[in-house]
Amino acid sequence: MYKILDEDSIRDYVDNTKEIRDLLLKNDQSINELEANEIGDGNLNFVYILKVGEKSIILKQAVPYLRCVGKEYPLSRIRMTFEIEALKTEKQLCPSFVPDIFYSSHYMSVVVMQNLNQHKILRDEMISRVQFPLLSEHISTFLAGTLFYTSDFYMDSGKKKEHVKKFINKELCKITEDFIFTHPYENNDTNEYNPKLDLKYVKKFREDTEIKAAVLEMKYKFMTNAQALLHGDLHTGSIMLNQKETYVIDPEFAFYGPIGFDIGIYLANLIMNYLSVSDEEVKYKEYVKVMVKETWEKFAQKFKNNMIENEKKRNSLQFEYPNGLNDFEYFVDKFIREIFEDTIGFASCEMFRRTVGLAKVADIVGIEDLELRAKKEAKILGTASLFIKSKSKISTIDKIISIIEK
Amino acid sequence: MYKILDEDSIRDYVDNTKEIRDLLLKNDQSINELEANEIGDGNLNFVYILKVGEKSIILKQAVPYLRCVGKEYPLSRIRMTFEIEALKTEKQLCPSFVPDIFYSSHYMSVVVMQNLNQHKILRDEMISRVQFPLLSEHISTFLAGTLFYTSDFYMDSGKKKEHVKKFINKELCKITEDFIFTHPYENNDTNEYNPKLDLKYVKKFREDTEIKAAVLEMKYKFMTNAQALLHGDLHTGSIMLNQKETYVIDPEFAFYGPIGFDIGIYLANLIMNYLSVSDEEVKYKEYVKVMVKETWEKFAQKFKNNMIENEKKRNSLQFEYPNGLNDFEYFVDKFIREIFEDTIGFASCEMFRRTVGLAKVADIVGIEDLELRAKKEAKILGTASLFIKSKSKISTIDKIISIIEK
Repeated sequence: MYKILDEDSIRDYVDNTKEIRDLLLKNDQSINELEANEIGDGNLNFVYILKVGEKSIILKQAVPYLRCVGKEYPLSRIRMTFEIEALKTEKQLCPSFVPDIFYSSHYMSVVVMQNLNQHKILRDEMISRVQFPLLSEHISTFLAGTLFYTSDFYMDSGKKKEHVKKFINKELCKITEDFIFTHPYENNDTNEYNPKLDLKYVKKFREDTEIKAAVLEMKYKFMTNAQALLHGDLHTGSIMLNQKETYVIDPEFAFYGPIGFDIGIYLANLIMNYLSVSDEEVKYKEYVKVMVKETWEKFAQKFKNNMIENEKKRNSLQFEYPNGLNDFEYFVDKFIREIFEDTIGFASCEMFRRTVGLAKVADIVGIEDLELRAKKEAKILGTASLFIKSKSKISTIDKIISIIEK
Repeated sequence: MYKILDEDSIRDYVDNTKEIRDLLLKNDQSINELEANEIGDGNLNFVYILKVGEKSIILKQAVPYLRCVGKEYPLSRIRMTFEIEALKTEKQLCPSFVPDIFYSSHYMSVVVMQNLNQHKILRDEMISRVQFPLLSEHISTFLAGTLFYTSDFYMDSGKKKEHVKKFINKELCKITEDFIFTHPYENNDTNEYNPKLDLKYVKKFREDTEIKAAVLEMKYKFMTNAQALLHGDLHTGSIMLNQKETYVIDPEFAFYGPIGFDIGIYLANLIMNYLSVSDEEVKYKEYVKVMVKETWEKFAQKFKNNMIENEKKRNSLQFEYPNGLNDFEYFVDKFIREIFEDTIGFASCEMFRRTVGLAKVADIVGIEDLELRAKKEAKILGTASLFIKSKSKISTIDKIISIIEK
């Protein structure tokens, strides 16, 4: 039977769950040797560090409500099932970038995994201006891997459809539909504004025909384009890393959606960090720009490579005639161009909502001087507006860089 | 337990299935009064007319193989479940254009419905040059109704996703993916050609970079864009009608796909009929051209109307500010423009495959003079090539008409 664990009852649970007990304790060791501490920083779930001597693991449990709000915001535990299934799929496709999963129980909405205690959250590190020269290489491999190998370009047509079915993630998709694609563009009580942000900037994008139509277009793509298994929430808080390793965590928003969504959310968070930094920090700003550029370019190159190598083996649609592979490449280039356009569109939506919606980014709200913060926020809104209005015309990542530089 | 019915065993089945028995027989009537005749023209299923005196109904049963090929082509009976569910959904949305469903059994893969004995198959009627002045009005209402009311523009986000899940129709989608979007563009044993068709016409489109890439683009949309519940096989053989009424039948291919697919398949079949007719039949050709034009224009008008009226009530994405509804209309016009482009793309694919793939249309293969037929076929391939290569530039249905006129 499902029950909500706490720092006390978790001992019994571990003691009675052989698969977890064996990870930490030898047969003759007592459960009293277990230290269990709830980290307390999960928005949705409870996260415990379980420790015995040098050994430690993470146990994460979903409760039937939104943890950060409380019991008055019910959210079904099924989200843990999506997280478990997504973690398993991602682990299979990109083992180096996904924590080890030791045990999971749909029944208890529990997952037990590697404790990333040698790693830190990317967002915090970016706020501290720590640089990670390997990050773009890693994250682009993760993106090109998870997004290609779960798509129709790789998977068997029937199996992919079974996957789509398995990952119909109604409740968490609705959160995204509301909080990324709807509320920030209307007068909604859930929106929160910096009191020093001049509302003329908000009104400006909310009453711009092209922007409104483009946001609805992006929302519709999010709701209908079942291209690949997305992480679904790939901001810089979903990445833990050090100078050698990068891990992507928390995929409870996983579902089959448009490829550009994951890339767009990630790039938007890099760009908002960039825009939060003062112009004097020249070297760090240069580093973030290089990350934006490299992430896209490496993703595009790796995705294309996956497409071409796979086509050579499989011939998804026969291009078996003189020059056939070149013709397939023509399709691939066109397709990647479309992913790029979607990426820019989704990045814009993330930038709007992180500025005027409910959830903010610490890179910006950490700026204590509200006037200065408002300046950055106006800049973000302006940049997002420019992106989404000209997404069909922006053809290279360099153009993106030159827009954020201004 | 499932068992395959035949003209004998169907008596027992009807006698023992109260819901069906009651449709035809009074309590005191004997089952011996039942006449049961298999029509024998179903490609996939067995179709019986059950008759007692003046009363008659249709009983359709799916067998675990493709009827027209035989037991060596297995095809799971689950297709009848999709047909039943799609018929029920369509009936609810567009009652005038879907036969009455009296009884269904997923278990026996059986559906019992209205006998359309006052109606004929549209394709046969078009081959006989019979005109139906109300058809465009009817079919555009069916299209705008089924495609709008099952989409995210109308349905609740979660319910629509449940629908997508319910209509994951792997096996029948695979048939379309193979026979419409793959085999006709490769050297595949299932393709069949008119021996008098000069293969240079086939080679020409098969080795054209733009066409190959565009066909793959359409295939990918078919596989990923879960926009609305499609009929999935809306050619002129799936429509039964008379001068007053129009019925759409056989939706076993139903699934959530791109809106332009149903419209494109239908228009392609009108256009192939048009191209099959000799230039002397001036009036009939004019009629078909008007049908093509009216079907699109009426569909677009009705779909737009559904969008606008619904938005006034719901505000799917808030456009609640001065001029907001005009801005929503801007989105709708853009969206319908995209459906139009998809429609042209899917129509092209249907025209290619009906000419060089496995399944042909009687409008063309009924032409006994193989040289003449080859001329028509070359025309169809040329028209399809022009359509798909210029779909992003063709902005009105009049342009489509002027292409087929030449």
